[in-house]
Amino acid sequence: MLLKDAERSAIEEARLTANTTRRPTVAALEEVLFTPQPVLDHGFVRVVDYMGDDAAVVQAARVSYGRGTSKLRDDRGLIRYLMRHRHTTPFEMCEIKLHVKLPIFIARQWIRHRTANVNEYSARYSILDREFYLPEPSQLGEQARTNRQGRGNALTPAQSARVLELLRGDAERCYDHYEELLNEAPGEGGGIGSSPERPPRREGEPQLARELARMNLTLNYYTQWYWKVDLHNLLHFLSLRADAHAQYEIRVYAEAIGRLVERWVPQSWEAFVDYRLSGALLSRPELEAVRALLRGETPDYAALGLSPREQRELQEKLAIPAAVPPQRAAG
Amino acid sequence: MLLKDAERSAIEEARLTANTTRRPTVAALEEVLFTPQPVLDHGFVRVVDYMGDDAAVVQAARVSYGRGTSKLRDDRGLIRYLMRHRHTTPFEMCEIKLHVKLPIFIARQWIRHRTANVNEYSARYSILDREFYLPEPSQLGEQARTNRQGRGNALTPAQSARVLELLRGDAERCYDHYEELLNEAPGEGGGIGSSPERPPRREGEPQLARELARMNLTLNYYTQWYWKVDLHNLLHFLSLRADAHAQYEIRVYAEAIGRLVERWVPQSWEAFVDYRLSGALLSRPELEAVRALLRGETPDYAALGLSPREQRELQEKLAIPAAVPPQRAAG
Amino acid sequence: MLLKDAERSAIEEARLTANTTRRPTVAALEEVLFTPQPVLDHGFVRVVDYMGDDAAVVQAARVSYGRGTSKLRDDRGLIRYLMRHRHTTPFEMCEIKLHVKLPIFIARQWIRHRTANVNEYSARYSILDREFYLPEPSQLGEQARTNRQGRGNALTPAQSARVLELLRGDAERCYDHYEELLNEAPGEGGGIGSSPERPPRREGEPQLARELARMNLTLNYYTQWYWKVDLHNLLHFLSLRADAHAQYEIRVYAEAIGRLVERWVPQSWEAFVDYRLSGALLSRPELEAVRALLRGETPDYAALGLSPREQRELQEKLAIPAAVPPQRAAG
Amino acid sequence: MLLKDAERSAIEEARLTANTTRRPTVAALEEVLFTPQPVLDHGFVRVVDYMGDDAAVVQAARVSYGRGTSKLRDDRGLIRYLMRHRHTTPFEMCEIKLHVKLPIFIARQWIRHRTANVNEYSARYSILDREFYLPEPSQLGEQARTNRQGRGNALTPAQSARVLELLRGDAERCYDHYEELLNEAPGEGGGIGSSPERPPRREGEPQLARELARMNLTLNYYTQWYWKVDLHNLLHFLSLRADAHAQYEIRVYAEAIGRLVERWVPQSWEAFVDYRLSGALLSRPELEAVRALLRGETPDYAALGLSPREQRELQEKLAIPAAVPPQRAAG
Repeated sequence: MLLKDAERSAIEEARLTANTTRRPTVAALEEVLFTPQPVLDHGFVRVVDYMGDDAAVVQAARVSYGRGTSKLRDDRGLIRYLMRHRHTTPFEMCEIKLHVKLPIFIARQWIRHRTANVNEYSARYSILDREFYLPEPSQLGEQARTNRQGRGNALTPAQSARVLELLRGDAERCYDHYEELLNEAPGEGGGIGSSPERPPRREGEPQLARELARMNLTLNYYTQWYWKVDLHNLLHFLSLRADAHAQYEIRVYAEAIGRLVERWVPQSWEAFVDYRLSGALLSRPELEAVRALLRGETPDYAALGLSPREQRELQEKLAIPAAVPPQRAAG
Repeated sequence: MLLKDAERSAIEEARLTANTTRRPTVAALEEVLFTPQPVLDHGFVRVVDYMGDDAAVVQAARVSYGRGTSKLRDDRGLIRYLMRHRHTTPFEMCEIKLHVKLPIFIARQWIRHRTANVNEYSARYSILDREFYLPEPSQLGEQARTNRQGRGNALTPAQSARVLELLRGDAERCYDHYEELLNEAPGEGGGIGSSPERPPRREGEPQLARELARMNLTLNYYTQWYWKVDLHNLLHFLSLRADAHAQYEIRVYAEAIGRLVERWVPQSWEAFVDYRLSGALLSRPELEAVRALLRGETPDYAALGLSPREQRELQEKLAIPAAVPPQRAAG
Repeated sequence: MLLKDAERSAIEEARLTANTTRRPTVAALEEVLFTPQPVLDHGFVRVVDYMGDDAAVVQAARVSYGRGTSKLRDDRGLIRYLMRHRHTTPFEMCEIKLHVKLPIFIARQWIRHRTANVNEYSARYSILDREFYLPEPSQLGEQARTNRQGRGNALTPAQSARVLELLRGDAERCYDHYEELLNEAPGEGGGIGSSPERPPRREGEPQLARELARMNLTLNYYTQWYWKVDLHNLLHFLSLRADAHAQYEIRVYAEAIGRLVERWVPQSWEAFVDYRLSGALLSRPELEAVRALLRGETPDYAALGLSPREQRELQEKLAIPAAVPPQRAAG
Repeated sequence: MLLKDAERSAIEEARLTANTTRRPTVAALEEVLFTPQPVLDHGFVRVVDYMGDDAAVVQAARVSYGRGTSKLRDDRGLIRYLMRHRHTTPFEMCEIKLHVKLPIFIARQWIRHRTANVNEYSARYSILDREFYLPEPSQLGEQARTNRQGRGNALTPAQSARVLELLRGDAERCYDHYEELLNEAPGEGGGIGSSPERPPRREGEPQLARELARMNLTLNYYTQWYWKVDLHNLLHFLSLRADAHAQYEIRVYAEAIGRLVERWVPQSWEAFVDYRLSGALLSRPELEAVRALLRGETPDYAALGLSPREQRELQEKLAIPAAVPPQRAAG
């Protein structure tokens, strides 16, 4: 993550603000407000604004007039009840706004979560910076054999070096040509891309429209957006993207956001971890199998309709010794 | 609007809060934060929380790092540009949470706006108060003749008295029976309906489940909800519900909310009024007619496909002397 | 369910249609297309249109060019995989449009599901029929003691008779006054409420605007709407509303819709039943408890943080003998 | 647009289907059902399924029992009324499902329309084809001077040749390296990318996971998706993307879809063109200016708050001789 001086000082200036408000505040989140949390080689997540706290969830569930009217002392108990029984609407009453810098191919996964507000840095109006994602060598995994979408064993050092050479070379060359196509003077190009190091404009030569030139960049270039979402939909996002099956490059963003959510609404986060993130959905046949196991019987998995794959999944959920060899090792 | 003592003191307590925050605050909105703004005979709207301000719209449009980095001095100009050209996503970056008390038949119109978060006071869990809407006599209009959904001339005093007698009598009787069906002790029934004036419980007699008893109430009973919405969708709501064609009983809520929005984001509000609320959409044939008028010609309305109704609508938009008698007077 | 003659013949006429199409059709659903399926005393659900079938789920998951290109024979296997791993978007590629007649207090629960399209019969434009919901005596339950939102033991016959007398009396009287307020001639009032049995118009007396008169009706009056939803969101609706904790009056609609879904997309329905409807979410502490049980140990429920209520819930999920007495019997 | 043999025959097979249905059908749309409509150099749009027709809009607006019950003969009149007065929900009752092949940088604009269902071809699971977008030379415009996001004058032939050389070279090289990174055997890689022309697998060398290798592609590579949307949201999409300010590369998709919508729901399309696409929103100050012009006065544009830019916009809307020179010529 390379912040330009102007960016760093804008953040520092914003952090000096001390306004007085009647709204609830969350000290642990204010502490990191506006500060970029690094993710991947050049990315970050930072909280730009927030609304509500754990008490706001309770307040909305009760449609109450103030924050002190509750007969129940135990807000935590109510929050856990709401989470357990999928009463999701009170969690929609908290909202957070993030500024995220992320590779385009990850942005394309992320944007599939539709219940959020987004403003993306526009490469139609402005120029993107020369910043692209290169994986850590330890993250360069082979195509998984048993799982068509995962990655398996890490490559050898020599193989990794070749992969990174190809990725870096193509990204650099594409950016060189992007700049040639744009042919804009240093300092032009809007907020992010107003690079002072850009080569001078070649007078008399054409400037291709930015909206066209951008097509020459590779998918690992970084983009940025403001992303605003309510707590319920954010937790849903995290349940899918902080999951072990999510692609590593989006999972690290989900994990960074998870740490921010824990600061913001610790009781909701605890309930979410217990009932969603570390919980497991058992299907009807899986429940039948567990019932048999609890009776001391050996379930007839085939008769229950559980494929070998589903049997492995059940064993993982229950952390019981596997009869069928586990898939992951092979993948 | 009748606040119970506990409700009033909960609000007052909340208003005493003075937290320090790095987030932007809006003094004019803080001034009325939590305070109910009366609407109709027992309803209200009050702001429970908010996120963002006019500068947040600009900040999101630029995906900027701080609040002070803009080269452009004129945030107002950018906001007007965004509004004019339907760049709506930056307005989604502000959010407001309202607590609204409103008659059920109005709640049913309101909820049709789906892009919002809602927690409604539940008459499955709790007991509703004896509070129902009775229109002002001046609002008791006849069924409009020319507009199938509007109301026309006001009733005479004698007619109004009869209408109100019927409405009041049925609402009171239905509530008496609601209480009989519930048969709950005074002080029970949750937040709103824990009425101390309720008749004592008739021991030995049944208590019908609340989720069933509620069906005996009429549609003018008041309900309450928390309603959270982003600025773009709120303005869309207001453009439809603050419109002259909206039913009076929802329009007064829209107008009360409009005054709160003006406090909150005055530049966005000004642009909204200029480009949406006081603007007008002209169709292709209407534009053709205007072009003819500007050339000093009399448009051939029939040839343009403009029905007499559409001709009246155009004349209203342009505030030009009507050739066809206006509809409203007749309605 | 009382269909007027015009309604019945409109349905019959529509059912006589035999168009030719290149689109996939589902014979089992075509069989009941347009036919009202009765629910409650006057309600119904009927399928008005549909798009897609089980194969369309598979086709979308593969983004394929035709219906016959799959290498995999086992569409069922893919559908089960998608359902199990929460790959929900392919299920969004099927759509169904229902015409539903339902009591207003149920419509208010239903409409909380926002990801659907709705057109409701408007009592602003038109007149509602004299049709209201009265529960079967067997459904008249007491307020549940242990569950604040459920219903418990049925009332005695004498108690039920009193309840129904109150409900019927208020509904009838409110409708009488609704008609008096409207004062419209028989045959007027639009599609549904153009009742030929209405008393004649009292000349010279006012007609209160329909948008106002409707507020005098009780919440058990029937309304109608067209409701269009994709399969994913429909299944989510069913998972909440066909659940044992849902109010009976909406559960019967969910069950009727479930039977239609089974006709429409039998493979998706089977997977939904196995993995959602008859499955169970186990929280982290619940999984810990199950692991202890499978090791032959007695879990320390308190140490795991499982309240007595959660212990009962776990025992219900596992159908194991309860140490803590079950809640339902008491409720 | 290059269809592989298997794709072409899958489409042809699907087009041979002749099912019987009680649902409404639209002959003009059935005619082109499944057939790809070419867009850009390799892209297409094809209709995969649809639900409803113009009559379904009317039926939903009336919540009617059949298709033949209307007293009004003039469905067209009602559709125009609904469109004019922004009664949008009946248009949500029609649904269409498209299969679209489009460059990734256009897909990123398109996906910002959130109220739609999407299944995209996954480059995590499968391999993308060697197909990328190269603009026609006539579309290679300079960066617009006065409009920061548009394109201006076309480049000279020599300049265009250089631009295309850069774009083609980088796209080809990036794909060569993508294949090297993947190192998969010909015929592997799922539906689209199972290219038989791929170089043979280099045994012993690593296969980088597909989810990583894809990041080396440039943004002009083609992707594909199924996109399902209701008519109201589709028209909203078209109003923004068929607009002259939209980027050319998405506008041609919008225009192709517009021609399909015209086949599907001709009355709704006609109303949309008249009231939306060819209409214009006039702001409060613009209306004031028009009123002055109609009175034969010269409006005081500055006093009305109309900037020179807005004055030009108004003149364009009214097609009146420009006092201020038009912007487009310069851009």
